[in-house]
Amino acid sequence: MNDFTYRNPVKIVFGKHSIERLDALIPPSADTMLVYGGGSIKRNGVYDRVKKAMGRRKLAEFGGIEPNPTYETCMKAVEKARAEGIGFLLAAGGGSVLDAVKFIAAAVPYDGGDPWRILETRGEVVESALPLGTVLTLPATGSEMNRFAVISRKKTQQKCAFPSDHVYPRFSILDPQVTYSLPKKYLRNGIVDAFVHVMEQYVTVDVNTPLQDRQAEAIVLTLVETAGGVLSGQNDYETMATFMWCATMALNGLISCGCVQDWSTHMIGHELTAFFGIDHAESLAVVLPGVWRLCLNSKKTKLAKLAERVWAVNAGSDDEKAEAAVERTEAFFESVGMPTRLGSYGIGAGDIKKIVDRFAQSGTALGENADVDAAAVGEILRSRL
Amino acid sequence: MNDFTYRNPVKIVFGKHSIERLDALIPPSADTMLVYGGGSIKRNGVYDRVKKAMGRRKLAEFGGIEPNPTYETCMKAVEKARAEGIGFLLAAGGGSVLDAVKFIAAAVPYDGGDPWRILETRGEVVESALPLGTVLTLPATGSEMNRFAVISRKKTQQKCAFPSDHVYPRFSILDPQVTYSLPKKYLRNGIVDAFVHVMEQYVTVDVNTPLQDRQAEAIVLTLVETAGGVLSGQNDYETMATFMWCATMALNGLISCGCVQDWSTHMIGHELTAFFGIDHAESLAVVLPGVWRLCLNSKKTKLAKLAERVWAVNAGSDDEKAEAAVERTEAFFESVGMPTRLGSYGIGAGDIKKIVDRFAQSGTALGENADVDAAAVGEILRSRL
Repeated sequence: MNDFTYRNPVKIVFGKHSIERLDALIPPSADTMLVYGGGSIKRNGVYDRVKKAMGRRKLAEFGGIEPNPTYETCMKAVEKARAEGIGFLLAAGGGSVLDAVKFIAAAVPYDGGDPWRILETRGEVVESALPLGTVLTLPATGSEMNRFAVISRKKTQQKCAFPSDHVYPRFSILDPQVTYSLPKKYLRNGIVDAFVHVMEQYVTVDVNTPLQDRQAEAIVLTLVETAGGVLSGQNDYETMATFMWCATMALNGLISCGCVQDWSTHMIGHELTAFFGIDHAESLAVVLPGVWRLCLNSKKTKLAKLAERVWAVNAGSDDEKAEAAVERTEAFFESVGMPTRLGSYGIGAGDIKKIVDRFAQSGTALGENADVDAAAVGEILRSRL
Repeated sequence: MNDFTYRNPVKIVFGKHSIERLDALIPPSADTMLVYGGGSIKRNGVYDRVKKAMGRRKLAEFGGIEPNPTYETCMKAVEKARAEGIGFLLAAGGGSVLDAVKFIAAAVPYDGGDPWRILETRGEVVESALPLGTVLTLPATGSEMNRFAVISRKKTQQKCAFPSDHVYPRFSILDPQVTYSLPKKYLRNGIVDAFVHVMEQYVTVDVNTPLQDRQAEAIVLTLVETAGGVLSGQNDYETMATFMWCATMALNGLISCGCVQDWSTHMIGHELTAFFGIDHAESLAVVLPGVWRLCLNSKKTKLAKLAERVWAVNAGSDDEKAEAAVERTEAFFESVGMPTRLGSYGIGAGDIKKIVDRFAQSGTALGENADVDAAAVGEILRSRL
């Protein structure tokens, strides 16, 4: 087990009447700005519940955060927050809205010039942030209980992440009932996103972390068991509650304590989203099997463990089990209606070069062994055509 | 899944050189008092490492916290801390020292009269506490990452617990190397203590919490797998690290999110310790099988799950599996050298009455169904003679 530091101060308020507890969670004196996306919270009742819970308190609003939230839109919210002297940010939405609010929170007090520096320095320049809270409407990214945000820049077609202890939400409200109105595609994306989050922390080098391995397996076993019910349209409360908690636990830092992490699938996937606009989860389902096959040797121990513990493949050599783990995972993605090939999105061999070029320019070496270079990215993407 | 609120702000600093990071973890301006137990930290090197890490900073000291820390001893530390204007408490020891420091931290600023009120009100009167940090030397109680403390009072032979958000440690330092010098009996106690902590949160009413169930099973499966190595005397770093992290995860609030909890074994066990002085873990191993057998019907679903998932008992009816779970758990305790009968401690039938009387006086109804009354406690204890 590697040495580690772990601290996650987010207060989770989970359950049926959790939105109604908002007023007690936000400091009474704070001028609050509600930030949301394309307006789904006005159709599914979340907006009304938030307004009602806030009672007579003044509530500024900023709507229109897009999926893969952009720096350009966020900066408009930053200006508004600065102009109105906002003291607390309340995000109501999915991971995109939450990530946007984390960036806005860090950008408002930032006085070192263009806040894009926050992304360029991977959060190093962040010394403070407005306090923020969240009302989660889409189980997927885990943003509600972590210190990460991913922001895109339209002008340069970039998609960048930053971490900062200052952007942990003070609280996150998780009411499984708000998922009832989600389109099936969003639920499918959420299942795959949470699944891949666990894999980025699990299918790496084995450094003797048996408890953390089982904690990771607990999440994916439960996700796999629950996926059918989530997608059934039956809106069973227990099923949705379990799915929601799985997605949060998949990326709150706990299962990676003392472990080696990968994240190359995410880094390559971000470029697919930046250049071609495919959904984040869609990009992950395409890339993951390619990364695993390329790195099959170094990931063999963990892939074999995945095959045994999650996919109940107990026969065969470690090589055979590792291959089975890749196949079974691809089949799981397909079973929830998620394509696993670039061709499904009309992306062809000729489109790969500009992604490879970008990795070549930055000289990035991805993965837990820093051996996934630009050439390897090309090989991975060509294997997923 | 029940509604829940979860927040745990403790910073865990885990690994080989973690004690050496102390200075950076304590506010520079704080007058700090080191609190420890019977002096084992002076023999195992922890005291010297702490002093060295603190450099030239002033460090007051209070030693002599006993196992099952007493109100009487803690109050001497409270007086010293008040007299010397202490601003930060540093606990170095096992659960007893950590619990003592939590009580001292809450008692120092308490101005509502006798601080025993803190225990009488189960923490309700605690409005603030001195900040505290811990250097854990004995994996067992989970006190390093929770908001609970258990304090005994000599004069009245009472053992009481209190929770408070104000006594979460600011940080807890976990260096698995400090466990190398622990006597086998302490390690055995730690294994059983952590195991029973999980059981109090798992073997209850099934309210549809598949993720939390697997997270609980992850801990006990790993504890069972690791126990032999922990007790072998080989002091393998990886084994001790895994054991240490299991004990912390067993009682940091995570696995009980949305679940129903029991804790009757602890409540009855506390009385055995208060009256007869047997170790906390010893009391748990005696009581747990008795509670399970008495409540076999209401705990059947979870006991059967325990049998399947942890003890690999897949044949038989739920009744048979539940019975197997009790037997296998008792056998596990015995396998680590832990007695499971009152007779091992010279406690006989005639000793049970005063415990029953105390529960009768207070009118307590223990367990997740509040159906373990004084008569049931008598039945449980008589079944464990």
